Amino acid sequence: MPGHPDFASIVAGVTGSVYSKLAHRLATHDGEIYPLHVGDTWRAPPPGCHLADFTEATHPGMHRYAPPQGHSVLVDAIVEWTAESQGLPVEPDEVLVTTGATAGLCAVVGALVNPGDEVIILAPFWPLIAGAVRTFRGKPVPAPFFDVAHDVASALKAIEAVRTDRTVAIYVNTPSNPTGKLIPRDQLEAIAAWARAHDLWILADEVYELYAWGGEHVYTRPLAPERTISAHSFSKAFGMAGNRCGYVLGPAPAIRAARTVSTQTFYSAPTASQLAAAAALGGPGQAWAQESSASYRAVGEAAAKRLGVAPPQGCTFLFFDVADALDERGLDGLLSDLVDQGLFVAPGASFGPYPTHVRVCFTAAPPEVVARGIEILAQRLGR
Amino acid sequence: MPGHPDFASIVAGVTGSVYSKLAHRLATHDGEIYPLHVGDTWRAPPPGCHLADFTEATHPGMHRYAPPQGHSVLVDAIVEWTAESQGLPVEPDEVLVTTGATAGLCAVVGALVNPGDEVIILAPFWPLIAGAVRTFRGKPVPAPFFDVAHDVASALKAIEAVRTDRTVAIYVNTPSNPTGKLIPRDQLEAIAAWARAHDLWILADEVYELYAWGGEHVYTRPLAPERTISAHSFSKAFGMAGNRCGYVLGPAPAIRAARTVSTQTFYSAPTASQLAAAAALGGPGQAWAQESSASYRAVGEAAAKRLGVAPPQGCTFLFFDVADALDERGLDGLLSDLVDQGLFVAPGASFGPYPTHVRVCFTAAPPEVVARGIEILAQRLGR
Repeated sequence: MPGHPDFASIVAGVTGSVYSKLAHRLATHDGEIYPLHVGDTWRAPPPGCHLADFTEATHPGMHRYAPPQGHSVLVDAIVEWTAESQGLPVEPDEVLVTTGATAGLCAVVGALVNPGDEVIILAPFWPLIAGAVRTFRGKPVPAPFFDVAHDVASALKAIEAVRTDRTVAIYVNTPSNPTGKLIPRDQLEAIAAWARAHDLWILADEVYELYAWGGEHVYTRPLAPERTISAHSFSKAFGMAGNRCGYVLGPAPAIRAARTVSTQTFYSAPTASQLAAAAALGGPGQAWAQESSASYRAVGEAAAKRLGVAPPQGCTFLFFDVADALDERGLDGLLSDLVDQGLFVAPGASFGPYPTHVRVCFTAAPPEVVARGIEILAQRLGR
Repeated sequence: MPGHPDFASIVAGVTGSVYSKLAHRLATHDGEIYPLHVGDTWRAPPPGCHLADFTEATHPGMHRYAPPQGHSVLVDAIVEWTAESQGLPVEPDEVLVTTGATAGLCAVVGALVNPGDEVIILAPFWPLIAGAVRTFRGKPVPAPFFDVAHDVASALKAIEAVRTDRTVAIYVNTPSNPTGKLIPRDQLEAIAAWARAHDLWILADEVYELYAWGGEHVYTRPLAPERTISAHSFSKAFGMAGNRCGYVLGPAPAIRAARTVSTQTFYSAPTASQLAAAAALGGPGQAWAQESSASYRAVGEAAAKRLGVAPPQGCTFLFFDVADALDERGLDGLLSDLVDQGLFVAPGASFGPYPTHVRVCFTAAPPEVVARGIEILAQRLGR
């Protein structure tokens, strides 16, 4: 039989990672599993906001398409919530409901980035943002930030160091996946002013906005509304990752441009997921998130203490260097040893130039399971 | 306040269409509505396959992420169904579950098309395929086909006429949206052989595979498995468009490449939607589809008769020329007149070089509603 034709250059050379090979071993592990590599929550959504709470009888047409911009019930709920949470109101045409924040950020990148354009990404970073930029043939440019930005001057130095005349946008994520850190108000204001001075877009990934306890979560949009597109997630906010529903906010022309892309990349977000998100946002969601936040914080701080690393300021991750525990097999060897004990953590290289770091999600399993997984990790690291 | 930075060239100049302005008027129409512009069904999904049929008690973790390739329950069901429906079996690594066939086809285009590459699209065509090609900076090249291909020779002439050395793929849709026609086996075999001779990919859009009554639906994959990626939809098959779940099948390396793109464009398909799709595919879905098909056929044939056009061979649409009923306002004037009576049909220019055609979906509303809408249309057209 003849072979197949060529692929596009953006996917050429993609092969299975060591990560996916280990995933198979984990799936067949005989004993308790600690899947701390995934960014997810063990908690089910708030009461009244499960998909089973929506029926054709109460919501006729709930299995049919929603409008590509979003179901009006959810758009209205987002408009109301945004005025309350951010202070700066948003109009319906500044909202685009997406199949998760991932699909939203990807559509935004498609709408803003021409081939060869550069997007500065504060590092360590959420891996999919680099993939999104590459998907549209842009160049992701990591700016090591969270470990070097101690004040306004060092924050600006970190981003200005990688700016070129091809830079079109900067990606800012607070609370930060994977570091668990918050970007302080003065640094975020400085970044916004710097973006304005250089006429750059700001992609503000705020999917963990409800999970900040070591300081204030600062919204970026009010600092530079004319150039900020912010991403928000019901997956993270209300434990609905499997529902694939999130949204982006920004200037109406940018949202219209993103919709031009999203109409092709996913068409519309799932209808029932939008109804469930609206129910959570206008109802029991905030109480659920407060309860989750207190639980996440307790588990995260205990894990950090056992591992001897700084406690998380928010988000659901710890990210730290394990160089002192590696042998000649490097990080792959450590990951492999951990998988033998049912524990999976994410390798640092996925998050930027951090080949000897690991990321641990402390909310992906119930607290007692996480505690046992952390104990396995701490012992293997000799901590 | 300063203005915003520039957009990517693929979205520059996009403005609201006359279509979306009319949609607003339709939404505020005072009286019965005939939304025959949408490709959707009025029927609710099969019994036992509503989202309300799935709970955390029976399906623990149903609100959490599914694997990016797809939930194993659904992948297994697809493998079983494909062997039965297509004759040619498929392996699990030749399956990618997507947030609707739209997202699947878009990810496939992203994986196969470099900027400047050309994709031949049999016309009239489903509009989003052209948008997907443009999203990845390829060039959609319509090949007028369904109105000129009467036999193998004329079919080959139609596609060869637009092939260039930049052609990388051909998009084939049968049963065809918007024409309601089926591509006969001999023509499809000739297209497959032609694609092999010129080393092209075949994108086979078969989302209406269960809705063919005027002849046999022929699957493309068995004709050229090494180069065909086929798209399938639970939206169309089982009345679940709002669930956003479909899948693509193809050679494992192509599926892996598509997953590289889909991981960024939507990450994973909704988990509960996948459970509902699996339940339909392995259970009451086929009986539901047979019942729907009989109903769709009766409604479609009655509509065609009243409008004096050829009966549909399958799919859920009629597509025909209304030039003889247009005044100096052109098609926009006709659409506007119809909206005044609560009727919305889709303008032909969305489907290729057909500025005086309209597309009517005869399944978007219950049969009696469609019949009243068709009567309004027939009277306005003087038929």
